[in-house]
Amino acid sequence: MSIGLAANADRNVALESPPEFLDAVTALRALASDDLEAVNAQIITQMQSPVGLIPDLAGHLINAGGKRIRPVLTLITARMFHYDGDNHIKLAAAVELIHGATLLHDDVVDDSALRRGSETANVIWGNKESVLVGDFLFSRAFELMVAAEDLRVLQVLSRASGIIAQGEVLQLATQKNIKTTFEQYLDVVDAKTAALFAAAAQSGALIANCKTEQQEAMRSYGRNLGIAYQLIDDALDYAGFEENLGKTVGDDFREGKMTLPVIYAIARARPEEKDFWRRVIADGRQNEDDFAHALQLMERDNAIADTVACARQFAATALNDLAKAPSNDYSAALSDLVETSVSRAS
Amino acid sequence: MSIGLAANADRNVALESPPEFLDAVTALRALASDDLEAVNAQIITQMQSPVGLIPDLAGHLINAGGKRIRPVLTLITARMFHYDGDNHIKLAAAVELIHGATLLHDDVVDDSALRRGSETANVIWGNKESVLVGDFLFSRAFELMVAAEDLRVLQVLSRASGIIAQGEVLQLATQKNIKTTFEQYLDVVDAKTAALFAAAAQSGALIANCKTEQQEAMRSYGRNLGIAYQLIDDALDYAGFEENLGKTVGDDFREGKMTLPVIYAIARARPEEKDFWRRVIADGRQNEDDFAHALQLMERDNAIADTVACARQFAATALNDLAKAPSNDYSAALSDLVETSVSRAS
Repeated sequence: MSIGLAANADRNVALESPPEFLDAVTALRALASDDLEAVNAQIITQMQSPVGLIPDLAGHLINAGGKRIRPVLTLITARMFHYDGDNHIKLAAAVELIHGATLLHDDVVDDSALRRGSETANVIWGNKESVLVGDFLFSRAFELMVAAEDLRVLQVLSRASGIIAQGEVLQLATQKNIKTTFEQYLDVVDAKTAALFAAAAQSGALIANCKTEQQEAMRSYGRNLGIAYQLIDDALDYAGFEENLGKTVGDDFREGKMTLPVIYAIARARPEEKDFWRRVIADGRQNEDDFAHALQLMERDNAIADTVACARQFAATALNDLAKAPSNDYSAALSDLVETSVSRAS
Repeated sequence: MSIGLAANADRNVALESPPEFLDAVTALRALASDDLEAVNAQIITQMQSPVGLIPDLAGHLINAGGKRIRPVLTLITARMFHYDGDNHIKLAAAVELIHGATLLHDDVVDDSALRRGSETANVIWGNKESVLVGDFLFSRAFELMVAAEDLRVLQVLSRASGIIAQGEVLQLATQKNIKTTFEQYLDVVDAKTAALFAAAAQSGALIANCKTEQQEAMRSYGRNLGIAYQLIDDALDYAGFEENLGKTVGDDFREGKMTLPVIYAIARARPEEKDFWRRVIADGRQNEDDFAHALQLMERDNAIADTVACARQFAATALNDLAKAPSNDYSAALSDLVETSVSRAS
């Protein structure tokens, strides 16, 4: 693996246009294509409202080309365990609506201007509107879950929603705090990202009524996949290329987010470099050259490479979890998803 | 009834310290006192989080001395229909948590600085924090509802949450729009306030398993009480006194909110006065004397008096709805609540 300024030209291909990962997502979606179409229809139905701003703003987000990985996890997991009802459609749509609601609030909280290559809803319509439409989508997600009439799944998904919000608050507290530890960072990722991946996969297993041990294994699979996925995202925020990433590279740096690449870099910095990190992260005083300098330090100290290595460990655990599921096309596709999600940065 | 600048001295007593209303709320709370204590304990449990900011911020809101009218509605309605389980505690706590979450987001959306006589959470902790802790409370409300294991109630309350958010978005669209009609205003109040009152009362009836007709009557009771309550609040925002109201009088005016007193005043304004309303509401350009001038016009044209009269009509319908409930101490207290809630402004 080679990540860094020196490998810039190669990285452009290896990091941002990972055909294997996109292929794996495409394969997963193909396996669930009818289901996914039904999910999309359900999402569009739920966005409707006589208040025109709501479908406009929600549609802008929902149609912006997200990969739908979370709802696909619910669909594929249910099918993998031979579920043959149709409640997985409602639950998968609810999972994507919860995700959409958190994205709207996230972009307000982070003052983000760009998501998936488009202007964010808060830039186009305003912060107030994004907050309220997020609340609307969140409520609609719950209405859908209730319609699926499974209290166990309702419990899993409502719990996940609370944990996500908690993770976002925790992230506010770590922001610009250069003393943030690996453990604190992992707590944030666990709550902010992995909780919904875990709940999405567990929900599919739950409605399929597989063994408790398998439900737990799928929860663990989702969690570990989610952490690996987020770690790679955080690496790409330093080592990625904008046109392929659909967001602004260096956003995390500019916002002073304490992600793993920065945590490693600060831990390994020479004494005279500590002032640099304090100025750019804690004080938020950044010059034009600071991002490039940060990348150089990260390259020298393997901060990004080791973030990717850490992601690989969680990916390996996810593959272990999958061993408890039946062997079929669905589990094979879930396995490919794990492997290629970390190969995004290899 | 006499409301206006001329009756200032009397109004101070009649409008803001309505002993009958406070007595009625006190009587309701006394009828449900053990239950209410259990509800408060449940709310405190749900606010807990290892992320310290969450209980701090949520506690500031929850402990700020709200009257707990919504959860009391759930408790009293359940008891009125002879419910003897304990799920009404969880549901009442969930109702208050939903209300708390919407208040946190409301204050962000309205840039409010004062609520119930204290600084708002967004002023003390910040907008981002208020949005995220609101999301957390909302999720916790759902966890509690799920724990009550009644899908019908889950449906009623999740639907109400969506309607509240929709009402808030609709209100954004009417803000500063001097063409807002009575019907549009009522749509906002119906969604923003009455939906949760309706769902709170219906939930109590639902878990008590009373007749469908009675469940619908309690839903209607809650809705009509909620509308009456909000109309009086909107009147008080013009004719009230700060120290007793716990919020800044004239807030709605300064924010250009199209509440019923303004809608009446604009509809009845003389041609040469239209420019005044356009300037202060639509353009938001206000001078020091404008609020007093607006009050004078409202007094002359009975804009506030007729808002109160409109509230009385909804209150009368609420009393009709109550006729479908059993006659006991609980229904008597719910009847007093309606009568005194409009006498706040008599």
